[in-house]
Amino acid sequence: MELLEKKILDEGRVEGKDILKVDSFLNHQLDINFLNDVGKEFKEIFKDIKVDKILTIEASGIAIACVAAMHFNVPVVFAKKTESKNLDKDTYEGEVFSFTKGKTYKIRASKRYINKNENILVLDDFLAKGRAVLGLIDIIKQAKANLVGVGIVIEKGFQEGGNVLRNMNVNLKSLAIIDSMEKGKIKFRQQRGENYV
Amino acid sequence: MELLEKKILDEGRVEGKDILKVDSFLNHQLDINFLNDVGKEFKEIFKDIKVDKILTIEASGIAIACVAAMHFNVPVVFAKKTESKNLDKDTYEGEVFSFTKGKTYKIRASKRYINKNENILVLDDFLAKGRAVLGLIDIIKQAKANLVGVGIVIEKGFQEGGNVLRNMNVNLKSLAIIDSMEKGKIKFRQQRGENYV
Repeated sequence: MELLEKKILDEGRVEGKDILKVDSFLNHQLDINFLNDVGKEFKEIFKDIKVDKILTIEASGIAIACVAAMHFNVPVVFAKKTESKNLDKDTYEGEVFSFTKGKTYKIRASKRYINKNENILVLDDFLAKGRAVLGLIDIIKQAKANLVGVGIVIEKGFQEGGNVLRNMNVNLKSLAIIDSMEKGKIKFRQQRGENYV
Repeated sequence: MELLEKKILDEGRVEGKDILKVDSFLNHQLDINFLNDVGKEFKEIFKDIKVDKILTIEASGIAIACVAAMHFNVPVVFAKKTESKNLDKDTYEGEVFSFTKGKTYKIRASKRYINKNENILVLDDFLAKGRAVLGLIDIIKQAKANLVGVGIVIEKGFQEGGNVLRNMNVNLKSLAIIDSMEKGKIKFRQQRGENYV
């Protein structure tokens, strides 16, 4: 998505070899008009697929999931990372290994809101090693729902998540794929116009 | 907001004396069409006020803040509850006492995104004891920005947050105020039509 690549080049800040800060528009401050364009693009990409529900994970996935959902006209469910008294006891649990924290944590979604045979589209802001998305896919499997696609705003193509998911034949579409950020210079993977790999 | 009161009566589940589960539409599954009506209502309530930015707190505030922001046509900033490598080191910090956890935790917003003299509208899904909103107000003060209003979807009127904020002359508008949930029966405070107290 050309507009997104431009936004990343204009506003993104690279730190070290693998941190890209896009907190001016994607995961701290939220540029709602821009996210609306991103949401429209997800709808365009997945327009031929029947989507019943969008699944994401707190916290920063919620913004893009909600704005996109207005174009899909479906509800959103966000998996929770912490136990909460507002969450039912009867939940599907997925496990996510956090490389940052060096430990596994659980994500949870109430069994009320992910139903058998529902067509679920997973949306998230970032894809790096893919562990969060794998946790969400695990929840979808437990619920006997159908994973119909995964939409990612920014994929770190130099980390393994994208390959892992594509090798599982997941219908993964990333609006921007960054192949390297060496010396602060961002290189995007060519996706032949808006034909996402 | 009549539509909201009806939704709470139809879908809310009371547990014990003070827990109201509205996870079918507000804070786990998100009913985006309904949240869009809520967002429009916030815009109608605050239509005479200049709003530059909406401030909320992760995680469940993000949904209503984002959908409402489409009607205000302004960016959202969400304060973070955890330290994150995606967050700048240079942050405003607020302290929030959690009654559930029995301890104080910090919330943070980057100094880049809350600016002096900006008009900030705080939005959140719930108001109970008000500690999260007080933490956000503290951040706004540190930034020398202007708090122009606080919009809450559901206020637990039997807890002290609403009184605390109104006594501070905060321009607080709660779309539904629950005065009691005794024996599972929800009683709303009369707000004379859509004239919010």
